Amino acid sequence: MAQAAYYEGNRRIRYGDAAPIAPAPAEVQLQISHCGICGTDLHIFHGAMDARVDMPLVMGHEMSGTVQRLGSEVEGFARGDAVAVMPLAPCGNCPACAAGHSHICQNLNFLGIDTPGAFQQYWTVPAHTLHKLPPALSLQHGALIEPLAVACHDVRLADVQAGDKVVVIGGGPIGMLVALVARQAGADVLVSEVNAYRVELAQHLGFDAINPQATDLIAAVMQRTGGAGADIVFEVSGSQAGASIMTELLRTRGLAVVVAIFAQPPAVDLFRFFWRELRLQGVRVYEAEDFEAAIALAASGALPLDALITDIRPLSGLHTGFADMEAGGSVMKILLEL
Amino acid sequence: MAQAAYYEGNRRIRYGDAAPIAPAPAEVQLQISHCGICGTDLHIFHGAMDARVDMPLVMGHEMSGTVQRLGSEVEGFARGDAVAVMPLAPCGNCPACAAGHSHICQNLNFLGIDTPGAFQQYWTVPAHTLHKLPPALSLQHGALIEPLAVACHDVRLADVQAGDKVVVIGGGPIGMLVALVARQAGADVLVSEVNAYRVELAQHLGFDAINPQATDLIAAVMQRTGGAGADIVFEVSGSQAGASIMTELLRTRGLAVVVAIFAQPPAVDLFRFFWRELRLQGVRVYEAEDFEAAIALAASGALPLDALITDIRPLSGLHTGFADMEAGGSVMKILLEL
Repeated sequence: MAQAAYYEGNRRIRYGDAAPIAPAPAEVQLQISHCGICGTDLHIFHGAMDARVDMPLVMGHEMSGTVQRLGSEVEGFARGDAVAVMPLAPCGNCPACAAGHSHICQNLNFLGIDTPGAFQQYWTVPAHTLHKLPPALSLQHGALIEPLAVACHDVRLADVQAGDKVVVIGGGPIGMLVALVARQAGADVLVSEVNAYRVELAQHLGFDAINPQATDLIAAVMQRTGGAGADIVFEVSGSQAGASIMTELLRTRGLAVVVAIFAQPPAVDLFRFFWRELRLQGVRVYEAEDFEAAIALAASGALPLDALITDIRPLSGLHTGFADMEAGGSVMKILLEL
Repeated sequence: MAQAAYYEGNRRIRYGDAAPIAPAPAEVQLQISHCGICGTDLHIFHGAMDARVDMPLVMGHEMSGTVQRLGSEVEGFARGDAVAVMPLAPCGNCPACAAGHSHICQNLNFLGIDTPGAFQQYWTVPAHTLHKLPPALSLQHGALIEPLAVACHDVRLADVQAGDKVVVIGGGPIGMLVALVARQAGADVLVSEVNAYRVELAQHLGFDAINPQATDLIAAVMQRTGGAGADIVFEVSGSQAGASIMTELLRTRGLAVVVAIFAQPPAVDLFRFFWRELRLQGVRVYEAEDFEAAIALAASGALPLDALITDIRPLSGLHTGFADMEAGGSVMKILLEL
């Protein structure tokens, strides 16, 4: 019998049987190859989203896989095709969908959160979620397409231009991918991160990286920008410290991009927004073009994706993955191999 | 001898002599006609800006007047020309000036705050600050050009389009001018204001106006927008309540425009910015094109400017003007006639 990992509440993961689901006419059944563990999965594991999720829940949405069975109406795919899923199923009827913002649909079904995800061997999804992976892209790297698409979306909405002075506050997996994509767009990127392992990793990847608890980040940015301030700051830490310093780092009319999920509304220096005519842009998930951009960028080989994969474990390693992420040490992205 | 009003600290205004200052080669001496009392003047009167201002200070920057004496190098103006002053003297050398943002110069001299202003009969200013007033524009209305230019700047930077659903939080002089300019641009404007006099005035001017302490503002906006939310919210209240509700009112990818001066960083729902991909834009003062737009708009007669002028008093009425503004009753704009 096929296997799945089930979140059952109270920080409990159960590994057990999962019957593959036959695809409806517009669906596809996938055989999962790899699936990364996301910070959101950890958040669910901690019980912070229990009001939203149905238990037992199969989490997982950062995946790669191959097409196993096709629904009767599905065209353009064949058994064995390598794919990544853009795990968004919008309602199509709400004002956000009507405005063309279906990726942030007001009734969004996020696969792996609101409905079952990819921490299982076989996963049946709507065919419209599929994006083909080219042969140049390994299935390991394919499991990084979803978070890489987040970064592509964020950099696109921020309109990063060649030569821009960019600061990324928070060098976790998403922050590091934002830094890499922004650099690929020609930006001069500084990473701010408090975790020593991640500071070293950022430096290893060629970034200037600073621990703002040890070095004066504002002074460093002003020194790099001739006293003007940064063009763009990506806030990926979700911390009050990050929300406070982002406004100090920006030039007149500079842009703060809110990538992080803030559990509580932080104090934000709206006087500074007024004084310097700063701008802020919230960014969430991705659109299809971001998935395509992420696939093309990953397949090009331009990004050091292997450096972001800390470990690859079997499905039964999900709980140890959570434990390692909680410990907060030398961890970037952990993949499960199904 | 010519007269001036001097702020001397400790909520004290002294009326006294002021010798007219001969213009330097690139300066012009003006005879002041009218000068409005700004909320910033009241803020200075309250001592909140004592660390910035040199006392005794002649305040006042919302003025109209006529050219009295021309510096030797000044061209394009003649004695008797009616003018308004854009009261900004940028340094020309800082990163903001270099980036073309001289109106928010990092070393800005704001005339009437950092150096003497127009609560005096004769005022000598750099010639580059002058904007001619056409004959169709009265000198009373000319004294409203400066705050109207703020509104033109805010509406321009917000890129208000015909048909946009706009909410203005705070119906004081600036908020009401923003509402008027946004409506002139074709927007459908709702005003939120807690002061009963201002709610009635907004309604008299043809706006839907709501007291959010008495009526559910969020429900009203959702009703008007089919559940989508507003395209643009101008936050002109400077209150925590305003900062909190602005994010609730906006559609996906809607824009919050921070016009108000927040003395303390309020809590801001950055989760909502993420969730709906909201945008925020800080706006401050104006650029020369906004002054010209304000003059053209005021001269066109399209705006009900008389309705915004609560009273016109002599220079010696400055302290009573402050008292009336503090009382917070039936006051919009008070002008001094010099």
